[in-house]
This record gives sequence, structure tokens and C-alpha cells, in this order.
Amino acid sequence: MIPTLNWTGDGVRFLDQTKLPLEETYVLAADYEQVAEAIKTMVVRGAPAIGVSAAYGIALGAKKTKAGTAEEFAPEFEKICARLASTRPTAVNLFWAIDRMKSLLAKLLGSGATLGQIQEKILAEAHAMYEEDIAACKTMGAHGAGLLPEQGGVLTHCNAGALATCGYGTALGVVRAAVERGKRIHVYADETRPFLQGARLTAWELMADGIPTTVICDNMAASLMRAGRIQAVVVGADRIAANGDTANKIGTYNVAILAHAHGIPFYVAAPWSTIDLATATGEAIPIEERPHAEVTHHAGKQLTPNGVGISNPAFDVTPAKYVTAIITERGVLRAPYRESLREMELVAG
Amino acid sequence: MIPTLNWTGDGVRFLDQTKLPLEETYVLAADYEQVAEAIKTMVVRGAPAIGVSAAYGIALGAKKTKAGTAEEFAPEFEKICARLASTRPTAVNLFWAIDRMKSLLAKLLGSGATLGQIQEKILAEAHAMYEEDIAACKTMGAHGAGLLPEQGGVLTHCNAGALATCGYGTALGVVRAAVERGKRIHVYADETRPFLQGARLTAWELMADGIPTTVICDNMAASLMRAGRIQAVVVGADRIAANGDTANKIGTYNVAILAHAHGIPFYVAAPWSTIDLATATGEAIPIEERPHAEVTHHAGKQLTPNGVGISNPAFDVTPAKYVTAIITERGVLRAPYRESLREMELVAG
Repeated sequence: MIPTLNWTGDGVRFLDQTKLPLEETYVLAADYEQVAEAIKTMVVRGAPAIGVSAAYGIALGAKKTKAGTAEEFAPEFEKICARLASTRPTAVNLFWAIDRMKSLLAKLLGSGATLGQIQEKILAEAHAMYEEDIAACKTMGAHGAGLLPEQGGVLTHCNAGALATCGYGTALGVVRAAVERGKRIHVYADETRPFLQGARLTAWELMADGIPTTVICDNMAASLMRAGRIQAVVVGADRIAANGDTANKIGTYNVAILAHAHGIPFYVAAPWSTIDLATATGEAIPIEERPHAEVTHHAGKQLTPNGVGISNPAFDVTPAKYVTAIITERGVLRAPYRESLREMELVAG
Repeated sequence: MIPTLNWTGDGVRFLDQTKLPLEETYVLAADYEQVAEAIKTMVVRGAPAIGVSAAYGIALGAKKTKAGTAEEFAPEFEKICARLASTRPTAVNLFWAIDRMKSLLAKLLGSGATLGQIQEKILAEAHAMYEEDIAACKTMGAHGAGLLPEQGGVLTHCNAGALATCGYGTALGVVRAAVERGKRIHVYADETRPFLQGARLTAWELMADGIPTTVICDNMAASLMRAGRIQAVVVGADRIAANGDTANKIGTYNVAILAHAHGIPFYVAAPWSTIDLATATGEAIPIEERPHAEVTHHAGKQLTPNGVGISNPAFDVTPAKYVTAIITERGVLRAPYRESLREMELVAG
């Protein structure tokens, strides 16, 4: 299992994803501020991994508090949550994890828990979220594996793998499950500019598993599709609105249109924590603008002329009409998503 | 005028496009072999510029020949042409220029020209092609400017500018002409992985002209289109088949599908030398596969894990159905292209 993030007792240990694939180094975040920085600078990234990282960040904040009582800790807890919530705006899993911790604290305060009990219960909740995330990926894989071809090319964008979760992956979990069932899948990994999650991370983790992988530039996808080399697309998600509109890494919307134009199914794999029924449509999903240096520089070398305009939205929204199915741990959902998502929420909730 | 390439008397002087935008350095190709290397390694690139470079390469070969007579030179001429033809397979302008020189030589040999006369006429032909190229770009601009909006965003891919021609540009010539007529155009330049012609070259030459430009990663185009920021797409071409199918820099086909999906016009601007009526459809256009290191490395730094599969086709083919119009120096052509191209060839030929 790839150790994307782990609680060590002294803090949260992250596999530094800014250094992969050439260096496999680890960073220990020893307080919640360092967890926030690791999320913001993308040492750890991927919606599910960010959610669990924030949960451990809160657990770490609780563990290291100088407060003497539960009542003293309560305002500090709010500050910790606000800091972690400020790191990245798009992935809803971050807010889902923080809200889950807020509900837990409210319950504990209401029942008169001591600070020691609170520290213990918050850490236990973070551990539970970690384990649930891996289990959700495995179940998603089981649900989604049947959608992939017995043999053929599967295109993915960004990294929705073990490195984007606590293990196994969402989109790549579906690929792994298909391969475990004997399907002969060749993965085409969009390199995913500007941060190169596909070239660096997806390629790295699939090679570790011995799954055949070809890295392509993002702009090569259409010609591969036309050449008949892609039988399915599967991607992750950062937030899925109530109507099925899906925010994911910039370029996902491009891929969805290309798949549609070539009659290729386009699947989104995400845990239920990525579904945001409080957001009606994709229009309402906030899109993070990342630092322009991600586009203008690579490895310290400047690519663009001084002073040119730059745009660097980190995500885009794929309208639900392009999504063939949404694969979750609760099952595979089909359009119309407003109905299928609400129904699944009621059944499973 | 940007000095993309120039005959100096001692050879062909190229603005080294592998070093832009940070270094403006020049390379002198002192024999035809060095011209061939400059084309192959993309010191000079862009279909029209490659064609004229090959013409000057032949003129340089003729000038430096050790042959004493026209008859002795003839087999060496064939060797020079074969070497230059071997550099890059997709842009038809290269073969057009070489064929034009072959016809000229056959005519000169038939009329009993001396070696000295041949050397002089071949150089004069190369100079004529250079001047014709600039004139064609200007005329293309005049024909195409009216197609662009009075005000708005124009997306372009790769570099089809002054740097891809002997001056002024094809797609960017259309933009320049529109701006000269007072249109308020903001150019969005796809960075164009892996060689980054958009980020490096298009941005550099448009900034030099004071035309507002924003560089985006290739995978950001769809979200800009959806946001209403792109009113037209204009690109160059490396070869246009008899049915209008258009080979151009990898990723152009992606952009064409995205434009179609958003109801945005998609224009191709190219001189008549790019039109290959001998090639029936895009299926028959050879697509160059470039070195994988262009994808795996940048500025000496490796991006991908060791041993991962890589695909690096330098071009793709956009089916004619996605092309709103083809802008040439002979006028603007519309579908059905098999008819409109043939008709224009007959009229102007």
C-alpha cells in the first residue's frame, strides 16, 4: 500500500507529492498549521486525501492544545477548523471532513466530555475516516470494474489514485479492480498540466503495480480516441453538485467533450463525501485559481516571456450531460442525476 | 519584422526558436546539412518557414558545390533534396519547396544553363519564395481579418505567427490584420505541449507587437469557451488534404472539437503551398513521432518515472467537418472543401 498519509503519534506523515516521481521523500507535519501548509502547497492533494488530512490536522490541533479544559479548547477548535478550511476551496471533502469533526465536537461538548475524551474521540474519528476512505475505494472498484472493457485502453486525467486517497484510489481503484479481475487494461495517463499529476503521480503508482501505462500530453487525447485506442475514460472528482455536474482537475471538461464526440463512455469515480447535495449545479462550485508560477516555470526555468498574461484555474466543471455514470461506494449512478443522487442519499442515509 | 530566417551570403541565419523567449540568439547554417539539422531540431519550425528554409538549403548546397559543371551538379542536387526532405514528414510545404526547385533545375538543365546560372537562378527562386511567403501572409490577413469579432477573445494553438513563416504569420497574420483594422482582440495562446510553441513563441511575438495575450495550458480551453471568453479560434496548418482535412500541431483536433461543442467558429489560415490536392483525405497524411524526451524532460529535469510508456505524435488531423473556413492568400474557402479547393486551384492555377 502506498503510504500517502499516516498518523505517527507525533503528527501526520505525508509522502511528498511535489517531489515524485524521482524522489520518494516524506514530510512530517507536526502541528495543524503544517498540515494546512501541506494541503495548500500540494504536498498532499486529491479530494479524499485532503479530507482525511484535514481530519488528522484537527486531531493534531486537539492533541497539541494548551487549553486546560474542553470549554477553553472550543474557540481554538474553531480557529483550527477555519485555518484548514482556508487552504483550498474546491474539493468539498475538505469541508465535509471539517463539518464531521464539528458535529462530533458539538455532541461531545453537549454530553460534558472532558478535554482528554475529546482528544481521544477526535483522533478516533480521523482514524475511522482514514479506514472508511480505503474501504470506499475498494467498494467503488468492485462497483466500477464491470464498466471497463475486458481489454483495451482507459484514459485518465490527473491522479485519482492511491496518492489522491488513503489508498487504492477512486478512478485508479476502478482500474485496479478491473485488472484484479483479469481485465487487460492499458492506461493512458494525461500528463495534466501544469502540476503534472498524471505524468508524475499516476504513472508512478501504476508502474509500481505493474499496470501498463502510457503518458501523453493533454492535447493528444483526441487523436488517440479517433485512432480507436481509448475504450473508456475514468476520472475522479473534487465536488459533484446535486444535478451531477462534476468539478475535477482542470482539463477534465475537455476530456469529457472529446469522449462524447467519439462515443466513448466517461465515468466519474468518487466517494459519497465528494457529493455535495447542498450545491444545486456546477455553476455554484468555487474554482481555485492557483499561483501563475505553476504555468510560467518548471524546475526553476521560466517558460513564458516576462509579463505575459496567465490563467491558472485548478479545476473545471463537467456538465452532467457528459457523465455516463458516477461510480461511488454506494453503487453506480446514472442520469438523471438529480433523482438518482437524491434517491441514493435517502436509501443509504 | 521578426527575423525568423535570412539569407546572409554565407548561409542561412535562423533565430533559434529552441532558445526563445528568454534568449534571442541566432544560428548560422553554413551548409545544407546544417539547414537540415536546424529544421529537424526545430531551431526553425512552422510549415511555411520550413519550406523556405529548405529552398535556401538547396541554394546553399548549389553555392557550395564542388561540381565543375551543371551535369556534375545534378546528382548532388538530388542528394541535397533527399536530405532536406528527410527532416520532417508532415508539413507539405517542405516537399512543395523541394519540388519547385526540382522543376526549376529540370527546366534549367533542359535549356542548357551553366552551373553559374543554375546557382544564381536557384538562389533567386529561394528569395522569391521568401518574398511570396510574406506577401501571402499579408493577403491572408486581409482576407481573414473580417472573420474575427470586433472585440473579443481569439484562441490559437501552437505558433502560426511570424516565427512560423518568413514574417507576419498565418493565423497570427489574421490576428495582426484584425488589430490593424482597429479590432480589439485578446489572444488566448494554448501553451502547446510538449514543445511549448504557444507559451514561448506566440506569447513572445504578440507581446513584441503589443497585442494583449494570455497563455493557458492546453487543457484550459474548454472552460474558457464555456465562460464565453473565446469568440473564435484561428490556427495554422501543416498540410491540408483535398477534402479539407487539416494536419496541424498536436492538439489542434482537440481544440476543433471543443470549439464545435461550444458553437465557436474554427478557422484554419495557411498559404496555398500547404494545400495538398494529391492527398485525398487526412488519413493519408504521415504523422511525425518526435523524440520521447520532449515529453519526459523539461530544462534537463525528468518529469516522468523511468521506463513509463510515452506517446509523442507531433501532429493530428482535424476532419474537415470541424473547419468553419480555410483562409488562404487566394481567398476564404468554405465547405464542401473538395469542391471549393479544386475550384480555387483551377481559377488561380
